[in-house]
This record gives sequence, C-alpha cells and structure tokens, in this order.
Amino acid sequence: MKKVGVAILGLGVVGSGTYKILTEHREFYKKNHCLDITVEGVMELNRERALSLGVEESKIASNIAEICSNSEIDIVVEAMGGIEPAKTFVLAALNSGKSIVTSNKELYCKYGHELEKVAKKNDCGLYYEATCVGGVPVIRALLDNLQGNKIISLTGIINGTTNYILTKMADCGAPYGEVLKEAQKLGYAEANPTSDVEGYDAVYKLSILSSLSFHTKVPYTEIYREGITDVDPVDIQYGKHFGYAMKLLAIGKNGEHGIEVRVHPAFIKSTHPLASVNDSYNAVYITGDGVEDVMLYGRGAGALPTGSAIVGDIIYCATHQGNNYSTFNNTEKADLTTKFIKNFESEYYLRLSAKDKAGVLSKITSHFTKRGISISQVIQEKAEDGQVPLIILTHTTFENDVKKTVDELNASEGVAKVLSVVRVIS
Amino acid sequence: MKKVGVAILGLGVVGSGTYKILTEHREFYKKNHCLDITVEGVMELNRERALSLGVEESKIASNIAEICSNSEIDIVVEAMGGIEPAKTFVLAALNSGKSIVTSNKELYCKYGHELEKVAKKNDCGLYYEATCVGGVPVIRALLDNLQGNKIISLTGIINGTTNYILTKMADCGAPYGEVLKEAQKLGYAEANPTSDVEGYDAVYKLSILSSLSFHTKVPYTEIYREGITDVDPVDIQYGKHFGYAMKLLAIGKNGEHGIEVRVHPAFIKSTHPLASVNDSYNAVYITGDGVEDVMLYGRGAGALPTGSAIVGDIIYCATHQGNNYSTFNNTEKADLTTKFIKNFESEYYLRLSAKDKAGVLSKITSHFTKRGISISQVIQEKAEDGQVPLIILTHTTFENDVKKTVDELNASEGVAKVLSVVRVIS
Repeated sequence: MKKVGVAILGLGVVGSGTYKILTEHREFYKKNHCLDITVEGVMELNRERALSLGVEESKIASNIAEICSNSEIDIVVEAMGGIEPAKTFVLAALNSGKSIVTSNKELYCKYGHELEKVAKKNDCGLYYEATCVGGVPVIRALLDNLQGNKIISLTGIINGTTNYILTKMADCGAPYGEVLKEAQKLGYAEANPTSDVEGYDAVYKLSILSSLSFHTKVPYTEIYREGITDVDPVDIQYGKHFGYAMKLLAIGKNGEHGIEVRVHPAFIKSTHPLASVNDSYNAVYITGDGVEDVMLYGRGAGALPTGSAIVGDIIYCATHQGNNYSTFNNTEKADLTTKFIKNFESEYYLRLSAKDKAGVLSKITSHFTKRGISISQVIQEKAEDGQVPLIILTHTTFENDVKKTVDELNASEGVAKVLSVVRVIS
Repeated sequence: MKKVGVAILGLGVVGSGTYKILTEHREFYKKNHCLDITVEGVMELNRERALSLGVEESKIASNIAEICSNSEIDIVVEAMGGIEPAKTFVLAALNSGKSIVTSNKELYCKYGHELEKVAKKNDCGLYYEATCVGGVPVIRALLDNLQGNKIISLTGIINGTTNYILTKMADCGAPYGEVLKEAQKLGYAEANPTSDVEGYDAVYKLSILSSLSFHTKVPYTEIYREGITDVDPVDIQYGKHFGYAMKLLAIGKNGEHGIEVRVHPAFIKSTHPLASVNDSYNAVYITGDGVEDVMLYGRGAGALPTGSAIVGDIIYCATHQGNNYSTFNNTEKADLTTKFIKNFESEYYLRLSAKDKAGVLSKITSHFTKRGISISQVIQEKAEDGQVPLIILTHTTFENDVKKTVDELNASEGVAKVLSVVRVIS
C-alpha cells in the first residue's frame, strides 16, 4: 500500500471540500487504488475553521516552512486563490520537492510559465485540472484525449455566477442589479462580484484552455473582455423572440489568420447544446478536426465538484510516474509568430431607439450599407413618445465596422441612438 | 525526437480514419509532442483499399507474424472488430512486446481480463478509449479525473444508430422499419443492424463503463437488454405530450443493495440534458458523490471521431511511462460479493386498449392497486371500434410488479390489452 501525504493550503470552499472528500473516502482509495491518502498538514489562518472540519491541532502548520520540511507530505494542494502569498508558497513547496495540485486559475494563468519551470527543475508534478470548470474533465481532455486533433475552436460557459444571473434574468425578466443581490444572498455571487461579473475569472480560464488547445501561450492580456453588468433584460426577451439564449461566452478560435480569444455576453441559438446549460452549470464545447464536436458539461464550481477535480489530480499524481505539464512551451508572453485577431467576425443584434419620422429607417440602414454590413432581419415596433424601438440583426460582419457604424449612428443627431449591441453566435 | 511506429489491423471505417489522421498530422505531432509517428505496417484483406488510402505496398503485411517481428512497430492499433481473429492478433502483438490501442468493444468487454493479464506480463500498454462513445473522453474521465468519486450512476446514449433512428421516428412519426431502411441507405445503420438495434453494442459498452465506474467486473451477461425494434411511433408521440423524449438508454447504478445495469428504450424528461442529444450524437451522464453531475457529449462513432480517440491513446501511450489498465481486478466473472439487482425500480408508461364498457377503468386500476402500484396520471381517449385507448403513468415501482400486472391484464379477457410498456427516467 503506497502512502500519500497531502497538505492543503487554505480551507475555504475548495480546500474544505477537498479535505472532506479525502477523509471520507480514505478506505475507498485504499481498496480501489492501493493508496493510503492522508492529510498530513493544513495551512489556514482561521484555526477554528480547521478544527471544526476535524483537523487535528498538530496538523495545522503555522507557516509554509513547516509544510516544506515535513517529509510525510508528498503533494501540496493550493486552494488559497489570488497571487500572493499563494505564489510564494507554491514555489517553496516545489523547491522542497513536493508536487502541486492547484485550483488557482489566476495564479496558473499569470505565472504558469514560472511554476512549470520550477516544477520541471525539481522533477515535481504540477496539476491544475481544478483551475477550470470544477469537476468537469476539460484540462485532461485537452492534455490527453484530444491531442490527435488540431483544435479549431472552443466555446465555453465557464463562469457559474454569471450563468446563474443570466438564467434568472431570462426566467423572470428582472434587471441585473436585483438578480445579483439575490445571487449574493444564495451564495452564488461573492460580496465583491467584480472578478466574475466583469469576466476576469472567465478570461483567466480561457487563457489556460486556449493555450492548451492551440499549443501556444495565449496571455490573458490578449483576450477581449466584456462583463454582464450592462446586460438589459429587454434584450434577453427580444433574443428569446429570435430563438436565442443570452450567455457569457468564452470563445477561442484558431484559424489560418491567427488566434481569436474573447469573453463577452452573446446570443446563441436555443438549439445549440450550450443554450440549455443553465443556472450555475458550466460547459465547454470543443471542435477538433478529427473528433468534430465534443461538449463537457457539469458543475463549474463548488466545494465537492472542485474538490473532485483536486482529488482526481492527487490520485493521478500518485499513480503516474511521469509528471504532467502543458503541451506547449509555456512562456510569459506569446510567441512572436502568434497572431491575435482583434477585428473578429460575428453576426450582430442591435437595439436602437429611432426618431419617429419619415425616412428614418432608410437613413439608419444606409449607415450599415456604407460599411458593407448586410442586414438579415429588422423589427420595427410601435412608436412611443416619438421614439421607435428598432431591432436590427446583421449577417456575419467585422467587429470594427459595427463599432464605427454605432459611433456614426449615435453621432447623427436626430436619427437614432444605439441602446445595445449583442454578438450572435450562429 | 522520439520515433513511434504504428501498425493498424483493419482499414475499415475506424482504421482508415486513424490512418488519415496520423498521416495528415505527422508534422503537427512532431512540432507539438516531439513525436515522429509513422504507420509502419497495416493488415487489410482488401489490398486495393489499403493502396487507395496511400499505404505503400511494402507496408502491407500478409500475416500477424510480420507485424509482431517488425522492430519498427511499437504500437498496434486493432480496428478489426469481432472476436476472431482480432483476439489472436492482439495476444500475439502483446506477447511480442507491442502495446495495443483498440476500438473493439466486444473484444474488450468479453476478454478484457485476458488481454490485461497478457499486457501486464509483457509490460505493454493496453488502451481502449475508442471502445466507447467515439472521440468523447469518457474512459479517461473514469480512469483519471473522477477517481476521487464514488460513482453513483451513469446514464448514456451510447449507440449512434439507434439514437439516429429514434430521433427520426420522433421528428416525422414514421415507423421503425421505414426509418431503419433510410438509415441504412445513409450509412447510419449496417446491412445487418442486429448488434445496434437489439442493444448488444450498447450492452458491451455499458459493461466496460460500469465496470470502470463501480470498480468491479460487470459482465455483459448481467445486463438487462431490450432493443428498439418494437418501439411504436404512437408512443413517441404520447411521450411528447407528457414532455418526454424516447431514447435507448444504457443505465448503471450502484446503490447499497447492489449494482443495476440495463439497456432499453426509455422516456426521459425533455428538460434533462440527455433529452436533446439527437441524431447520431452520443452522451454519457455521470453522477458522482463529489462531482455531482457531469455530461460528456459528442460523436459516438465515425472514422475521424473514433480515429481521434485512437490517436489520443497512441500519443498517451508514447508519452506516459506507466501503462494504463482498468482500476479494478479485471476478471472473467463478477466477484462473488457483487450483487446485481434484477428487480429494479422505475416509473412506467403503459398504453392499453380497453373494452368500451362501464366499470372497465376501475377494473384496470384495481390490478395496479393490488400490486401496490401507484398511478400518477391517466389519459382516456375517445373510443374507436369499441376499444378505448388508455395511457397510464405510474409512480416509482418495481419492474416485477409491473410485469405481473401486465400479464394479469392481458389474461383478463374482456378488460384490456397492454400494447406497450415504456420505463420513464425521472
């Protein structure tokens, strides 16, 4: 029976979920994997929390040096989040010969290159399945299963908080602020929700997933980002009318002209498998040149689902001789030969408020025609207070042309004001 | 650059897809994996097919001995299907020190125990991701990612042919025989469709998946099996009315009383993620005690999707030192301590033709009450030719009680005839 000593840094949601799974399943792992996995140390500022979970007093370390010098510990789980002191602790653990299992997407996204280098130098494992989409096995699928493919694109709903908020907004028509408050009350959104609702969390994950998919570093700074704070329930309702669901999508594409990476709210056809990924569920839809379309779906967060990913990595680490790194040269910046496409193509949905005057529709559409934008559908509603609500759907066109058209329309006093623009994924 | 020599046994759909992927991606694998993977030998009775794919004449082996003695070959892909001569060839390759990558679900399901023993003895790899659900990474998810979990259940749509047929029957209301013919014309069903439409193919896959999930051998002979040949489009239409989709489901459950494994057509709620898995797409929905619900979705068959799984295994085999076997004691028969539940519980849909006489409904329902079966919904249609179409939905009850009730109803001349029984997954 192989003995495996684990330390857990941080006993928040993920750390305590991991602790719970490991302690409750000890006999199960002994029987099925011939592994006796025990938690030999934890680091947690809140000692009471550690004790209430059942951690023995003697296992609570006061500093990282105690963890690093403890020869009973083979694997260190970093579940603290944030950059510091997580980064210092992870580097210290690697340098003392411990393998790392982390759920820290921000750390891995920003410093993965440095961690990998130190892990390789020390011949330690570095596992990060839990950084993306909780217990859904997307990292391992990209690292192992799909390696035969050139990945063409991935489209993901990879943030549970925003998916919960958008689902509730769609269900009850309530505005963003109201639903956010409810989500905070229920624990689906944090007190400071910025990282989730502004799309940063999704950007970190997309950086990791697209780097793996496209075999080249995709720095998070190259990813276009737009959050959900400005989403208007009116547009969600119009979207339904056209057969679309509104989702915060993380999109990565690798084409002959370069790599395109973006996170923003978008409409997706209600028949697309991603459209029925609701509440706090997540999914990643991957298209490869051999496998065609694959979707991996499940809980993207939470104590036990993310703990499941961490424990999966612990068992993998303990049962596989080789270590597991990214399958690309993980550097700080992108390779100079990598081109990032900023002026991407999409279909668009625009909602305008037009002046109720003869010839206005013709004037508005002429702005689109001028930029070569082809309109696929128009809905003109009844005028109210001299303003005509107008919905315009376009065929595939360039982002920059749409932006210019919007600027021109807004500048053309007396014609129309653009109230919202939503990209449409066909 | 590590050189990896591959042999492919059988250049049918899967073998030729694998050949195509390997040859077209050679430079891609060199660049991204430092692997130079070449096809050093093929075995294919139809030489013309091999030559038309671009295989050099000198690489076409006449017998398995040529493959086994070729020192350029490290990995043998078995894509022949069936038991013999596949089994003899695989054993010969393992005994000559070659690792095996197979897509042969029948072989792995029936003789996995023997193949594993020989692979271990020869310190060779044995990989079988391609046996189940094409390019969808379900085997690796069970082998690696989900090992932290006790798997509670898996429910899968794991046969593309039957899912295609049921989708078309639902779309156009056509009878089974008609849709089967169309599916055969389009290549979605084989000339002899028995293995697919009678559920054998799904049974082999469920045996593999549930053995992995539940850490014990689940012999295919323990799996209850019912195909789709008797599915009546009338029931599919009634199902729609109740908000159900008809699918051929493969179900494995592991509870305190034992393991329950079955393949049969069933109704599933249209809001369940599996309900929108249509056409030849497949999906496996897994519930673990940590990860909660995970669904893996994609093409379950086809040259390139299955080829993708095979090439993923080839790259894994070439880049991982350890070999990869089942994480249970893979034996021929189930462990004597394993209990299989035959009298499973389910909700039920029954369609009856009742005599148009006073008191008949009361007589019919009394048969249910007698067996302790609780009825949740009844639809009585208008009588036609003295017969009343009657739909009965039950609450959760035992399979055996429903069977007995059906027998009794059919025996009670002058009351009702049971036309169809469909299990309902809630």
